[in-house]
Amino acid sequence: MQIPKTIQKLIESFEKLPGVGPKTAQRLTFYLLHVPQTELDEFALSLSSLKKKTVICSICNMTDEVNPCTICKNSLRDKTTICVVEQPLDVLALEKNQRFKGLYHVLHGKIDPLNNIGPDEIFISSLLQRLKGKGVSEVILATNPTMEGEATAMYIAKQIKAKDLRVKITRIGRGLPVGADLEYADDITLQRAMEGRSQY
Amino acid sequence: MQIPKTIQKLIESFEKLPGVGPKTAQRLTFYLLHVPQTELDEFALSLSSLKKKTVICSICNMTDEVNPCTICKNSLRDKTTICVVEQPLDVLALEKNQRFKGLYHVLHGKIDPLNNIGPDEIFISSLLQRLKGKGVSEVILATNPTMEGEATAMYIAKQIKAKDLRVKITRIGRGLPVGADLEYADDITLQRAMEGRSQY
Repeated sequence: MQIPKTIQKLIESFEKLPGVGPKTAQRLTFYLLHVPQTELDEFALSLSSLKKKTVICSICNMTDEVNPCTICKNSLRDKTTICVVEQPLDVLALEKNQRFKGLYHVLHGKIDPLNNIGPDEIFISSLLQRLKGKGVSEVILATNPTMEGEATAMYIAKQIKAKDLRVKITRIGRGLPVGADLEYADDITLQRAMEGRSQY
Repeated sequence: MQIPKTIQKLIESFEKLPGVGPKTAQRLTFYLLHVPQTELDEFALSLSSLKKKTVICSICNMTDEVNPCTICKNSLRDKTTICVVEQPLDVLALEKNQRFKGLYHVLHGKIDPLNNIGPDEIFISSLLQRLKGKGVSEVILATNPTMEGEATAMYIAKQIKAKDLRVKITRIGRGLPVGADLEYADDITLQRAMEGRSQY
């Protein structure tokens, strides 16, 4: 027996999602067969309107429903500090504890030569443009502590220095995460933790 | 910053799927922001038409686009054997190797008293009805080898015997799966494997 076309199509749509294999896609699709039609319609509507109703902020490149985004528009935010992150999800992660009061700049990627992504493919030049305007005193480079993230941070720091912009450049702290075990930490994390030690 | 409503809605739809937590739902949603609109529309269409374009076969309860389903309609299938399974996905699994040539009967569940599912909640009576008609010589009980699956199989076997239907009742083979290791098999599987031994 062939899988019915209607079902097969949905399975294929699910399979395209990251981390969803053929078995999971089948399971999800057959699960949805038992879900009320109203819920399916709601899901479908959310999907088709996802991109139609969202825009990328022209200042910080964050995804939002308004432009400028709610963060850039908020007059209570500290406009002297810009935190540079790779993805919109990173902004949501940092916003969760509501400690950081500054603005963001989303690069929408990282410098990744193996995947043909150079500095011009991500929003670095618009960041430099923002820093040229007066009022920014610190830029926090919060790209991921991976090989590509570190390279991206280094590249941005170099560019800022080369352009002689008078702005403090900092890198987000790297070391042992809360709850970690020294015994199981990898070499480089331990090295970073030692380098990044602070006075008690 | 609050997550934009449009995005939050899609995240919530994903979260309702089995095995998808809040983090995965966020990841999938933000992944879809980079996907072409045509693909999103296709996904949405497949979702909303999933239930509209499928029916449950009035003979075997399999999900298909036609009624009776392609298996029940197929004149080449052996109508003397009926294989009883719990879910439509089980039919697809058995159909994959194209060895079994008989018909199916999908129960759409299993007897599960802890979740308030009794024999009347699943398609057992329609199975007995099918067996009353002439022409069926064997019924293969292929419910899962779990506690509930075994109980369901036992219940069906009892009902068939009680109704004095002249039909051979078999249970799908239970034992060690191909590639397994005796050393790591659990007690009950080993016991079943010994009981189900066959002559060489």
